[in-house]
Order: sequence, then C-alpha cells, then structure tokens
Amino acid sequence: MGAWLGRGLGRCVILSGRNVLRSRRLEASMSDPSAPVVGILGTGDFSRSLARRLVASGYIVLVGSRTPKRFVSLFPEEAEVTSQIDAASQADIVFIAVCPEHHSTLSDLKQALAGKTLVDVSNGLRISQYGPSNAELLADRFPESWVVKGFNTISAWSLQMGPRDGSKQVGDNSKAKISVMELCRRMGFIPVDMGLLSSSLEIENLPLYLFPSWRVPVLGTLALFIFFYLYNFIQDILQPYVTAGKNFFYKMPIETVNVTLPSVALVLLSLVYLPGLCAAFLQLWLGTKYKRFPDWLDQWLTMRKQLGLCSFLCSVLHAIYSLCLPMRKSARYELLNLAFKQVNDGVEISWDDEKVWRMELYLSVGIMALGLLSLLAITSLPSVANTVNWREFSFVQSTLGYCALAMATIHTLLFGWNRAFIPAQYRFFLPPTFLLVLILPFLVLLGRLALLVPCVAQRLRQIRRGWEKSHHIRFTLLQDGSQNSLENVSHV
Amino acid sequence: MGAWLGRGLGRCVILSGRNVLRSRRLEASMSDPSAPVVGILGTGDFSRSLARRLVASGYIVLVGSRTPKRFVSLFPEEAEVTSQIDAASQADIVFIAVCPEHHSTLSDLKQALAGKTLVDVSNGLRISQYGPSNAELLADRFPESWVVKGFNTISAWSLQMGPRDGSKQVGDNSKAKISVMELCRRMGFIPVDMGLLSSSLEIENLPLYLFPSWRVPVLGTLALFIFFYLYNFIQDILQPYVTAGKNFFYKMPIETVNVTLPSVALVLLSLVYLPGLCAAFLQLWLGTKYKRFPDWLDQWLTMRKQLGLCSFLCSVLHAIYSLCLPMRKSARYELLNLAFKQVNDGVEISWDDEKVWRMELYLSVGIMALGLLSLLAITSLPSVANTVNWREFSFVQSTLGYCALAMATIHTLLFGWNRAFIPAQYRFFLPPTFLLVLILPFLVLLGRLALLVPCVAQRLRQIRRGWEKSHHIRFTLLQDGSQNSLENVSHV
Amino acid sequence: MGAWLGRGLGRCVILSGRNVLRSRRLEASMSDPSAPVVGILGTGDFSRSLARRLVASGYIVLVGSRTPKRFVSLFPEEAEVTSQIDAASQADIVFIAVCPEHHSTLSDLKQALAGKTLVDVSNGLRISQYGPSNAELLADRFPESWVVKGFNTISAWSLQMGPRDGSKQVGDNSKAKISVMELCRRMGFIPVDMGLLSSSLEIENLPLYLFPSWRVPVLGTLALFIFFYLYNFIQDILQPYVTAGKNFFYKMPIETVNVTLPSVALVLLSLVYLPGLCAAFLQLWLGTKYKRFPDWLDQWLTMRKQLGLCSFLCSVLHAIYSLCLPMRKSARYELLNLAFKQVNDGVEISWDDEKVWRMELYLSVGIMALGLLSLLAITSLPSVANTVNWREFSFVQSTLGYCALAMATIHTLLFGWNRAFIPAQYRFFLPPTFLLVLILPFLVLLGRLALLVPCVAQRLRQIRRGWEKSHHIRFTLLQDGSQNSLENVSHV
Repeated sequence: MGAWLGRGLGRCVILSGRNVLRSRRLEASMSDPSAPVVGILGTGDFSRSLARRLVASGYIVLVGSRTPKRFVSLFPEEAEVTSQIDAASQADIVFIAVCPEHHSTLSDLKQALAGKTLVDVSNGLRISQYGPSNAELLADRFPESWVVKGFNTISAWSLQMGPRDGSKQVGDNSKAKISVMELCRRMGFIPVDMGLLSSSLEIENLPLYLFPSWRVPVLGTLALFIFFYLYNFIQDILQPYVTAGKNFFYKMPIETVNVTLPSVALVLLSLVYLPGLCAAFLQLWLGTKYKRFPDWLDQWLTMRKQLGLCSFLCSVLHAIYSLCLPMRKSARYELLNLAFKQVNDGVEISWDDEKVWRMELYLSVGIMALGLLSLLAITSLPSVANTVNWREFSFVQSTLGYCALAMATIHTLLFGWNRAFIPAQYRFFLPPTFLLVLILPFLVLLGRLALLVPCVAQRLRQIRRGWEKSHHIRFTLLQDGSQNSLENVSHV
Repeated sequence: MGAWLGRGLGRCVILSGRNVLRSRRLEASMSDPSAPVVGILGTGDFSRSLARRLVASGYIVLVGSRTPKRFVSLFPEEAEVTSQIDAASQADIVFIAVCPEHHSTLSDLKQALAGKTLVDVSNGLRISQYGPSNAELLADRFPESWVVKGFNTISAWSLQMGPRDGSKQVGDNSKAKISVMELCRRMGFIPVDMGLLSSSLEIENLPLYLFPSWRVPVLGTLALFIFFYLYNFIQDILQPYVTAGKNFFYKMPIETVNVTLPSVALVLLSLVYLPGLCAAFLQLWLGTKYKRFPDWLDQWLTMRKQLGLCSFLCSVLHAIYSLCLPMRKSARYELLNLAFKQVNDGVEISWDDEKVWRMELYLSVGIMALGLLSLLAITSLPSVANTVNWREFSFVQSTLGYCALAMATIHTLLFGWNRAFIPAQYRFFLPPTFLLVLILPFLVLLGRLALLVPCVAQRLRQIRRGWEKSHHIRFTLLQDGSQNSLENVSHV
Repeated sequence: MGAWLGRGLGRCVILSGRNVLRSRRLEASMSDPSAPVVGILGTGDFSRSLARRLVASGYIVLVGSRTPKRFVSLFPEEAEVTSQIDAASQADIVFIAVCPEHHSTLSDLKQALAGKTLVDVSNGLRISQYGPSNAELLADRFPESWVVKGFNTISAWSLQMGPRDGSKQVGDNSKAKISVMELCRRMGFIPVDMGLLSSSLEIENLPLYLFPSWRVPVLGTLALFIFFYLYNFIQDILQPYVTAGKNFFYKMPIETVNVTLPSVALVLLSLVYLPGLCAAFLQLWLGTKYKRFPDWLDQWLTMRKQLGLCSFLCSVLHAIYSLCLPMRKSARYELLNLAFKQVNDGVEISWDDEKVWRMELYLSVGIMALGLLSLLAITSLPSVANTVNWREFSFVQSTLGYCALAMATIHTLLFGWNRAFIPAQYRFFLPPTFLLVLILPFLVLLGRLALLVPCVAQRLRQIRRGWEKSHHIRFTLLQDGSQNSLENVSHV
C-alpha cells in the first residue's frame, strides 16, 4: 500500500497547478467546514511529510517558518510556506512540529493561536519517569489554546508511505480532540482516544520503548541456554577429556548447541502453561475469582506469548541444527571409520533393531511437535489472530498447545529410551540432560490432568461463573466464561 | 500494540485524581454531547475490561451493581460503582453485561431505561439454530428502549489489551446504532454494521464456531492421508513381508509417511484448481455467466484457500521428513552394509549415472515447487493479502499457483522416472503410488491448456463480460472482468 | 472474518421478509438521514456484490437495469431491481457500475441525477499515462452531479467476503465525498481521502499495477543469479572437464545452484545497507540535510525492503539445498567409494581436524545468520511491523540487520578458510567465488565502522538535527532525529 500511495502522491503534485489551489484555498476556507486550513509550525522531516500527507487528503496547508524562502523548494507545491505568524493566524488547527526546547520561540504567536487547536507532535528524547510532559508545558505556555497530543507515534516515514498504525492522542477539550480525530481519519489513520492530557507523558514515552514485553522472556531464554550449554559441555566434552583424554571439543559449535536448544525449548514451553495452572489452583484454593493474583503471577501470565515464541524459535533452530548433522565432515569421517571397522571385523550386516526403532520414533514425534508449534506460532501473528474468534484462538493456544507439549515430552522420553537406567550416563554423577529437562513438563501435564478430574473441573467452572466459597451468592451471575473471560482464566 | 496500551492504561489510573473526574463528569454530561455518560450493568470480567477501556477513551463510566461496595476495588478509580438504578437512570447508553438467564432481575429498571440505548453484549452458550436470540428477548423485555447488539465478538482480553477485531453490531434504531458505533470507534475498534436485530442470532453464534471453513478441507486431508498411507503400507511393507518375509516395519513412522505426504499434497493442490476449471467449462457449456453454479461447486470454490494451505502444510512436512532421512540410524546401517558389500565385491568405483541424475533433478524441481508454494502461502496471510491489489493477488494465486502445480507434477514424474514400466513395481498388482497420484494434476493441467486455445479463451472472455448464448445482448455491458470479477471467475 | 461474514449475510437474506423491508425503506427514506437510499446502475458482478453488502449494512438499495425482470433473481431479496430512471431519481447516492464505454447510454438520466452524488467505480483496462480518466469523463457528462471516484480498488470478491482494504477515493465536492466516506465506513472499509478528481487517473491505474516496487529488485536478483551461476559453472564444471576431462555435469541442478544462491544473498544483503551509507556520506560531504538526494539514491532507498526479502529468499533456498546434499545418490556413491579407498589403503582412522573445525564453525555461524535474517523478514510482515514502534523497527532493521550482514560475511570467510591463498583455487585464473562475493560486504561494514568514529558520528548527528555547514543556523531546530526522522536517515 505504501508503494502506491507514494506514487499516487507523486502524481498529485504534477497534476494540480498552484494557482488553482490558492484560489481553492480561499474559497474552501470560507465555505467548507470539512476542509479546514491546517497550519504547521516547523520545517523538519516530520513537518514535510505531514504537509505532503495533508495536501494529499485535500486539506489546505500553511507551513510557518522563520525563513520561508529557504524551505519553499522542500515542500510540495500545494502547501504554502509562509511566515509563522501568517500560518498561525489563518489556520484552524495548528501542528507544533518545532522541537520542544524551542517552544519558547513561539511565544510571539500567543495571540494568533488563542482559541485554536494546537497539536503537539513531539516526543521525549529519553524515557522520562516524571512530568510535566512536553504537551503539558505547551498547554501552560498557550493557556488560551486547546492542546491535543497526537501523531507522535507516527513516524515521518509512515506519514509519507501510508498508514501503518493508529495515531494515539490525548487532550482535554472534546471539540478540539474530535476535529483532530476527524483529520486523522481522513488521512487514513485510525485515531485512538487515550483520555486526558495528564496521561500525555506516557504517550510521549511510547516511541522510546525497546520491546519491553520481550525483555524478561529473552533474558530468561538466554539464562536457560547458558545453564544447559555449560551442563552439556561438562557432561559431553569435559568428562571424556578429563577421564579418558578424548578430544571432543569440535562438538562445541554444533552438537552441544543442538542438545542444548531442545532442552531450553521444552522448559520454556512448560513455563508457558505453568502460570495458567497456578492461577487455576490459586482460584480453587481461595474459592473465588474476585481476588487479584499476586503481581508475579499477573506478569507471568502476560509473558506467555513471548515465552511461547522463544520456545518455538529454539525448536526451529534445533530442527535446523539436527538436519545439518549428517552433512558435517565429522559425521563423514565417523562413518568411514565405522565402515573400516565393519570390514575389518568381517560383519556382513550390521543392524540394531532397537536403535533403529528408537530413532525413527523420536524423529517422527519430534516433527509432529514442531508442526503443532508452527501452527501456534502462525496463529500468534497479529493478522491471523484477528481473523479467529475467541473459541478458535483458545482451541489453538490451549488445546493444540498442550498437545504440542505432550508431543515434545514424548519426543524427549523416546530420545532418552532406557538410558536413564544406565549408570554410565551419569557422568560426574550428574543425571543426563533429558532427565533434568523432563521434570517441569511432567509437573505441568500432571497438573493439567488433575484439573480434568470431574469434581475439580466442576468447582473451577463454578468459580469462574462467579460462585464464591465465602458468599455462595450467585445473583447477577456475570457474563463471562466460555468466550469472554480474561485470558488468565481461559488459557489454563 | 496491546502491550503499551496496557501500560498506558496503567499509568492513567495513577495520574488522574477521582475528584477531578467526578466534577468533569457532571460538566461533561451537561455540555459535551460527544462524551455521553455510559452505564454498565453487571460486574464480571467483561464489565471490568469494558469499564477500563471506556475510561481510557474519556467516557464517564457508571457501573451498576446490586452490591456496589464489594466490587469497588475491582474497577478502575475513575469508574463509579453504584447501584443499578443509579447507573441506569444517569447513563445515556447502557451496556447489559449481565448473563442472559438473569435478564429478568433487571425488570425493575424498565422505567429508568426507557428511551435509552441498551447494548446487549451477551453470547449464546452453544450454537443455536432457532431464535429468539438474547437480543430479541431483551428487546421484548424493554420495549421502550433501543436495543443494539454488539461487542459480543470482542473478548474481555482484547478490550483490555487493545483492538484486535471490528465489533459487529446489529440493531433496529439508526440513531441508537450510530451512537454505539461512534463509541466503538472512539475506543479504537472498527464497527461493522450488520443490519437488523433479526439477524442477531447469527451474531450471537459467531464466537462459538470452531473453524467452520476448515472442517471439510481438514477432514478431506485426513481421509486422503489415511487412504494413501494404507496403500503405501500394503505395497512397501506388507508385500515384501508376505512374499519374501522381509521385515520393513521400521519404515512405518518415517519412510511410509514421507511417501504419503507428497501424494496428499499433490492431490490437494489439484483440488484447488479443479473447481475453477469446472466453473469455466460450466459457463462455456451454459453459454452465460448469469446462472448460479450448483451448490457443491460454490462451496468447493470457497474452500480453495484452505485446501491450498493444507497442501502447503503437507509439502513442508514432506520436505522435513525427507531431510531427516539421511540422519536416521537405519540409513547409516544400510550405508555401512553397502560399503562392506562394495569392499567384498572389490568394486573400486560405484556410480550409476542415471540414478544420480534422476535424484539431482527431482530434488531440484521439488525445491522450486516448494518455494513457489511458500510464496502462495505467504500471500494468503491476511496482512500481506491486504497490501496487494487484485491483479497482483490473482497473478500470485493463479499464475504462480499453476506453475507450482506443474512443478510438483514434474517432480513426481522425475521421481517416477521409468518405473511405471517395470512390472516389479506393480506389487500385489497395484500400480505404484506416483502413478495414482498423477491422474488428477494431469487432468487439471490439460483442462487449463484447453482453456488457452484461442477460440475457447475468446468465448470465455465474452461470457465473462456479459455475453449470453441465448440473448446475444451486449448493452449495458457490466463492469467486470479483469480486476473486479468474482473470485470464482478470476481464479481459473 | 470473510468466512463468517459470508455466513452472516447468508442468514440475513433468509430471516428478513421483503414486505417488512419495503415498508421500512419508505419510512427510512423519509425520516432517517443516516440511511440514505443508495442506487446502483448496472447489474454485473460488482453491482451484485455491492448490493449485497449495502443491504447488509442497513441501506436501502435500488438497482437500476434496462431489463429489471431478467436480473431480479440474481440480487438479494432486500434490494429492489427496478428501471434505471426509477433508481436514479429515488436515490441520493448513485453508484455507476456500468462499464465506461457504455456511460453514453446513461445520458437520459441527466436530469434525474442532477444534484446527486455519483460514485464512479470503474477501472481502466490497461495502465494509461494520459488523461482524461473515466471519472473526469463522467463528470463532464453530468456537470450538475457531484462525481466521487472510489471503491474501484475493492474487488467484488472482497465486497462480498468482508473488508480487506481501505477504499481510496477522490472527488471535488466535499459534502459528496463525506457522504460516500460515511457509507464506506458503515460497510466496514476504511476510506482514504486522496484529494481532487484530477488525480483520479492514478486511482484508476492502481488495480492494474503488477508489483511495481518488486520489478527492479527481482530483475536484479535474477541478473546476479545468472552471473554467479555462469561463473561457478565455468570454474567448477567446465574447468575440470576441459583440463582433466572430468564429468561433473551432474552438479548443475543442485551443487552449482547451492554455491550460487549464497553469493546472490550476500551481495543483495550488502545492497540493502549500501544506500543508507551513501546517504550518510553524501550528507556529511554536503554538510546539510536540506538538499535532495539524487534520484537513483532515492529510488534505491525505497527498494531496500524488497532487496532484503530477495536476499532472505536466497538464504532460505541455500539452507534447503545444503540440507539436501547428504541425501543425494551422488553423495552416497562418493562416500562408498571413499570407504573402499580407506579400506584398501588400510587407514584405520581418517580424521582431518582442520577440515572438521572449519565445517562446524561455518555451519554454526551460517545458521545464526539465517536466524537473524528470519527475524528481519518476520518484522517486515505488515501486521508485525504495525505492532512495533519506530525505535524497535529501526533496532531490528538496522542493528540486527548489520549483525546478520556481519554473520553472513564471517560465514563466507570461514567457508573460504585459507583457500584464497591456494593457487589451485584460481581455475582459469579466475578468483574463487567467495572472494568476489566478499568485496561488497567488506566495503559496507568498513563504511559503517567509519561512521562510528566519534567525530564523524557527532557531525552526522548535528546535520540530522538541522545543523548546516553554510549557515550554522540552529534556530527553530526542527523536530526530528531519534524516532521521527525519515527512513533514509534512520536506517543507516
């Protein structure tokens, strides 16, 4: 879409003569209330993109600059670059696209801007915990104008290329806000009303955050990875080196990583479903759904999507690493040496039915687990999630998710086979990795099974429909349950 | 987006004092028609999320409860939790978030609610074929109020986290409906007007469906899979066991699945393009486009996207299974045994040029087919499909799709090589799988070629521009064809 | 969403009786200004879908046809199929869904259409460089009506199935335009105002373009592929054949392609980051950001996303081809022959530590590079890009992108190992491919490092905040920089 909008705007400029528009401007500003004259103070990148977009949406645009002549060539033909006072006095809505440190230079325009709607588009330079926000300072400076905060979450780039995101705006005066929302809508963005100007600090911080919801899940994944990598390094490489002098260090870049990744993936996947179980058992224990969960549980519950995607990433990498195994020179040399040995020993047919079956089975179950996880990952794409209803979403994320967890657990069990009972596997007296990894998924699957026991399931259903142990009150049983309940309830 | 909205709302609560808002409420309700007072009856999860969202969008929110004191702490500070009668009488728009079985408890509010707009947000508990719907019952109960159905397709979760989906609503009174749509829009959702209240039953059923458009394609895929799996099992495992006593059962989890998957994928891919051909030939035979297609064809035409995605899934799984083949212990043993044999026989260089070329070629064509299918799959993601125009969409889905089908057919042909002519391949007198699988794609490709014959193509083009065999009338030749025609026409 | 809308509409038709609607129509047209009577002239596919959708959105629909009786059965019950003059005179907004060549047949309706809003939904049949557009011709024909261009970018299919895309519209009269936009919005589409009717030619061309932004990147990829394929063919297949008579032609479908693909991918990836560097050095040299970039640079900058996705596609194909390598019959024969040789030579253990480490390392780094590229590709999906803010977007596309480029370069270096210094690798006196391929990424990485030198970085930051070498003017320092600057600035 961006592409053609760009093209569309390009042609606009060519087709429409300046004189036509100038006269149209006067005419329009007098007669047509729906195309108000819009002023922009400031001539930076954002200002230019905004002007181009407003012109394309049929608005009359006046750009106010201290040195209008220098900037005329940078703006589209249809926008008029003029003095600041001229722009401020003729326009109904004025965008303040001057950087906040220089708001003081606008003081001369106080009179001209009185009674008008000012749109503050500025962002903070760094995340600020304490106010006042730029918008509040601007409102203090121009007490007779209506300040609306908005458009700051839209980049100059998306202004030029086409709508990517709803513009969020706040402001105290309803009429001023509505006219800005209408303008926003005509430009093809979806305005989202975010309340009073007092929350403008938050809005100004928005574009400065760097994946805040991913921080904990990514750090957790890294920590798990490092732990399991070291564990495997000690067991698979250090132990043979120390005890038998065997040099397996070449395994570090691929084989050890490839044993570490599925461990991380499986632990993360159980961490996705553990908080839902905790919530359910907490509700059962408290006998009500009207008590807030502890903070850590609330935060954990909101992290599940990110944890799930991290787990999926690890699984996919595990698959790619595994597929690379037979390609390596080392695998080749091992095979050649085995062939030599077989010939030397005179064994015509070497075949171990147990080993063959074990591998065929765990590969096959692993592929299925990966396939299920892929479905979950696809469904968590925003555009796909938008097309499914709540029941479908919860079927995929909960039912299919538990299937994937069960599959992954079976994959690990089959991989382990009978090796948990072979003492040689306990190198340095440490249990093999797959045993360690299986604890959490087993707990989660057992907990889920416990919730399926009829009497427990029945009580939980009651609680989620409003029943309370202490009150036994059921009147005004609130709309809830099946499809409209909160995620932390439905995802168990 | 959800993430920051959550954060944004969080801060809102802290920053705004209650008194300010209380006075603002009175002021606003008197002077400002754009921020009406909104009432919510009921205190469940949905009610709480709705209140939080409405407050964030600058509305004055009154929550009506039978026991207001118990619930005050669960609602945001700015929302006032009060008695039901208080909420009902002060608000202009009242959300009924009480579960339908308890609508009768609201009878006392009849007078207070007269003339107001009631929004029924309830869902059915199970899919109901016959009316009346909850909304119709509510309208019967409050004949003097305007009932609008809406917001039921939005979950409490997405209300809290940010817009995911357009709210669908129905209702009989236009003004009531428009004010609810405006409210919906201010909250950042896209309202979709779905007509009269008489269709509210359908709207109430919406959140209860579980992938209805996927049922037939998924069942069809499963049926094909089972059929081909059994066929391959009989040919590749049972036949050698019965006739020669060879134990190939270890092939069941991977090798047999890996021969089955591409068969299913290829048949499904031809089933994607077959209905379009049927439609074209039907139109040619009838000599008009103004006759409706039979129902089975109409339904088949709407299933093509799902069939295509199932085919893509099978292809990807086929690729992964194939890549796993050399990794297996069984492949390793076979190789070792071959090496032993070669050494024993004293063959210095073993090389079969025909086998080498056959494999290099069919692998290479197969990868290309998979690449093309991936492009098709990516283009069917909603957000990508939205950015392409009709001509681009039809180029990818039709032109590239036929290329992918042709590639997949060549892949199968190369895989088959000359084995269709070797009697040993007809085990139990059954033709080898690849022969069976090739029938349908051959038919489809031939049919497509037939439609490219100039005189046929010309006639079809005429028909699709409105020409009719019986009438030969061409006046008011309707806008159609190239880019705006119906899918069942353009996708052929 | 499409699916259930279809179902929803289907039920609508059954539930609502005609008589009810007929009377409602009269009532509504008199009293309710928000549900105007909408006329449609023409009875083609588009007309039918439009009628169905308008009916579903609660509008009163009149379809005008020359032979109304023939078409009654094709339209939904609630829409009235009547004569053209009847539809034209009763409706407030009239859609002209007659193909442009037949606009002349509508001349009789001139009087009936005077003062009304006409919506021209037609498209051109081929891309037209020169006007007048269909909409302008229509406006000439009906000088007393208000012509609005719109809905032509929506296909009949998406009209029926649900909103996919914003409708773009242009038109000269603001009130006419606003009423059409309102209508559009009620149907669930997002209208985008694109200015005056004089740009309607562009709008009519929109649905005819075929991936215009992809043309150069795809052709460039193909050209690079052909060049590198021939280069590798000469070195790896022709040279051994000519000089030693060795027949390696079987390598053509897979091995040669597999050496070519990563070369193309790496060159493309450097081409993604080269223009940003050029822009930065140009700004440093000119000492201002207020000079326009040359056209080629501007166009190159807009192509980066497409180049990046082409590079990603090549990388993924390279991964798949590589994974296929050990599966091939040829790899098998080579291994068997090696085994024979080893046995013959009596070498018990064959192992080359250098070769093993080289392969483990470059595989491992290659997988990481692919993982990073996947993250970039996922972030460029429209729906994912919409959920990240500007800082996050630039972190992924710029920081992670440079990491991926560095990884891919290291992957190639490790692959090359010491072979650049072995004369035998310079077959036909040509340098090995990996040397050729490394030039561009090295340049890009060096350029990026140069920009990190403190004094250079400081000057660039100044320039991007508005500083100019010639003026040293800093007043009205414009809002810009960190998050709102243009893409060609931030992506360096």
